[in-house]
Amino acid sequence: MKYIIQIILLIQSIQISIAQDYDHTHKINKIYDVALTNGNCYKWLDYLSNQIGGRLSGSLNADRAVKWGLRELKNLDLDRVFLEDVMVPKWVRGTFEYASIITGPGMSTNVPICSLGGSIATPASGLRAQVIEVKSFEELESLGTKKIKGKFVFFNRAMPANIIDTFEAYSKTRDQRSNGAERAAKYGAVGVIIRSMNLKLDDYPHTGNMSYGDLPNKMRIPAAAISTNGAELLSSMLSLNKNLFFYLKQDCKNFPDVKSYNVIGEIKGSDFPNEIIVVGGHIDSWDLGDGAHDDGAGIVQSMEVLNIFKKINYRPKRTIRVVLYMNEENGLRGGTTYARNVKKKNENHIFALESDAGGFSPRGFSFEASDNQFKKINSWKIYFEPYLADRFILGGSGADIGPLRNGKTVLSGLRPDSQRYFEYHHNANDTFEAINKRELELGAAAMTSMIYLVDQYGL
Amino acid sequence: MKYIIQIILLIQSIQISIAQDYDHTHKINKIYDVALTNGNCYKWLDYLSNQIGGRLSGSLNADRAVKWGLRELKNLDLDRVFLEDVMVPKWVRGTFEYASIITGPGMSTNVPICSLGGSIATPASGLRAQVIEVKSFEELESLGTKKIKGKFVFFNRAMPANIIDTFEAYSKTRDQRSNGAERAAKYGAVGVIIRSMNLKLDDYPHTGNMSYGDLPNKMRIPAAAISTNGAELLSSMLSLNKNLFFYLKQDCKNFPDVKSYNVIGEIKGSDFPNEIIVVGGHIDSWDLGDGAHDDGAGIVQSMEVLNIFKKINYRPKRTIRVVLYMNEENGLRGGTTYARNVKKKNENHIFALESDAGGFSPRGFSFEASDNQFKKINSWKIYFEPYLADRFILGGSGADIGPLRNGKTVLSGLRPDSQRYFEYHHNANDTFEAINKRELELGAAAMTSMIYLVDQYGL
Repeated sequence: MKYIIQIILLIQSIQISIAQDYDHTHKINKIYDVALTNGNCYKWLDYLSNQIGGRLSGSLNADRAVKWGLRELKNLDLDRVFLEDVMVPKWVRGTFEYASIITGPGMSTNVPICSLGGSIATPASGLRAQVIEVKSFEELESLGTKKIKGKFVFFNRAMPANIIDTFEAYSKTRDQRSNGAERAAKYGAVGVIIRSMNLKLDDYPHTGNMSYGDLPNKMRIPAAAISTNGAELLSSMLSLNKNLFFYLKQDCKNFPDVKSYNVIGEIKGSDFPNEIIVVGGHIDSWDLGDGAHDDGAGIVQSMEVLNIFKKINYRPKRTIRVVLYMNEENGLRGGTTYARNVKKKNENHIFALESDAGGFSPRGFSFEASDNQFKKINSWKIYFEPYLADRFILGGSGADIGPLRNGKTVLSGLRPDSQRYFEYHHNANDTFEAINKRELELGAAAMTSMIYLVDQYGL
Repeated sequence: MKYIIQIILLIQSIQISIAQDYDHTHKINKIYDVALTNGNCYKWLDYLSNQIGGRLSGSLNADRAVKWGLRELKNLDLDRVFLEDVMVPKWVRGTFEYASIITGPGMSTNVPICSLGGSIATPASGLRAQVIEVKSFEELESLGTKKIKGKFVFFNRAMPANIIDTFEAYSKTRDQRSNGAERAAKYGAVGVIIRSMNLKLDDYPHTGNMSYGDLPNKMRIPAAAISTNGAELLSSMLSLNKNLFFYLKQDCKNFPDVKSYNVIGEIKGSDFPNEIIVVGGHIDSWDLGDGAHDDGAGIVQSMEVLNIFKKINYRPKRTIRVVLYMNEENGLRGGTTYARNVKKKNENHIFALESDAGGFSPRGFSFEASDNQFKKINSWKIYFEPYLADRFILGGSGADIGPLRNGKTVLSGLRPDSQRYFEYHHNANDTFEAINKRELELGAAAMTSMIYLVDQYGL
């Protein structure tokens, strides 16, 4: 029985291999040629990173990025370019953030910290308290109010180095940043210090979003990230002297929501204009670097898809739409607004692709798809093999397109090599200098090829 | 008939999948754990790069690197550690290298150049001559002596950006550097300027070896590489004014051969001590950077193989030998000497692995093997799949192990992602800062796993 199934699978695979179409091979070859020799994504990213810079939702730079995106998409001579209104949260880092470890009178060591997105400020004079180090919420719970009240909770669970996919390693520690303050506040902590999510030992604190959940305002406590070296130092010093003090001063602030935009452009499909294929990334970024990898890379690669189609004179059968989503980092309002409007307008999205894993050498794609859809997509692997981007896996796509999930639309994420990503993620190192031109371009070419095949075959 | 063959292949593949041994899965998991959490290769490379630095054959630094390699291998408590004598060429860059483009009296622009390894010096007062730009030897030939005599020949064929494997792109341009001087001298050129083999436009000239072939001494002419930006500038200026002058001054020099060493260490096999598995890279490097990628990475990864075996208490069945070859860059004397001695001692090498393609994220291995050998190796792919290092291709291994080629020994090369390599290759950017710790470690783990499987199964 097993053999018979295998033989059936074999015959299917023969049929699939017969299905290789040399027109497609040729077209994809052309796509890569344009991306690697005459593309625009690297130049775009240079401008966005170096002339605009970090662009947190609600900031002046986010506004400038929207205007830039609109202008550049208009320059591509698409069939339609427009803005979609999105109300976004506005959080501002403020003018200072500062911390030190105090072991005695006049004995203090500065450590690199940064406020977490969404955190409240400390009192103007700062916060000074003892520290209790934990590795997990279970440990927090077992310590209880008695040992935590009046102290900083120091969440020091490191990203596990022996997990190959660094996003998986990230997922094992992210709860400390997202929910650490909410959890620690319930036991009377005065503040939380979170080990930066970085596999490298260095001096850069990594920001990121945090939430107080349902915690009433008066119970909210300041939250800051400490660099990995800072975390190692604090932990060592605590092992020598658990009565040391930590001093934290930050003046970040939450403001009321402000109006912002998703930037959208599209080429109308010639045969099936109502079948929409969407590709995108997020246009907002954290404020510490210039957001080149997260997610400048993703938006310029997405724009490049349409640019390449124009350059090779490819007229798609289906409507190809690029969306530069606003506010992925601290609210996901762009993604949710877009999906809400899709539903309202009853638009038929057959495929949504996101690039938000850094501008590194592409290794393949992840898909949220039915077995049949995934089987069809897998039959296209042969086209990606010469470009070393043929690792297709089931599961996972991207945050911004998540709200489009409806059991029919196939969601997909570009999967670049993940090894270097968390050195740049949400910190001052995420700059244009950390981008490799070819790696960025290869990602854009892989995305364009995938969109091309979805357009050719449907799903 | 086709179907029957496919079914046979299918049944074989079922047998292969049955062959997955969970002991091996477990062992390889342990290998990766040690490499990523408790390895030594990054620390080794830090020392070699930053405390020793560039180590061209015959230099004081090459000597220091040999002593360092010997000491570190002895620290691993192997069964045998020894030096193998190798006579190596000695070429010295000298104290200055300088070039400019002269368009008129008092009108000159400096351009970044470096002497090519093996080149002779210019006269002490430098060389000043007109320039003729070519893209190929065919073009050189068609121009002939009349148009070339008394001029610099400027070889300006760029690495093609649209080839995915950058080593393949390199191979399409390398002849300019290797043989450009010999070819141009035959038409009476006074010197050659070679476009650096770099896919990026930047200001770093890339050195590398060149040869005069059989050219008599009096016909030899100086050869220098110009940075890619410099090449673009020179080409543009020539298009405006083909009568401009180029000025080159360099005082590099060839010396008689000197004595040096391959550094060798081994763990004796418990069951088949006469079946030798060799792993290595080259300990010499060019002098412009500190040789971190080329090939510091390869030698510390090779040393790590034995270190990991020791750490996980793995006693190999076959003899595992690490060789740090001397003089890959400008003579390959280490590799040829090693192979000559293998033949002399009638040693049986079943497998030779080299890492000399940079310390980047590993994607798989290349093999020079018979069909049967390759089929066997391919059955191990499953073990590498979880680590994203399962791209096995037939063809190509490494320069140092090339002389071991005998139709029986399987030769193999680690294949890391190649996109960034030629930005660092043979120039001042090849420094420890360009190394990513995890990428380096993943390469070492993949190599250790491959050596482990060869040891377990034989070939």
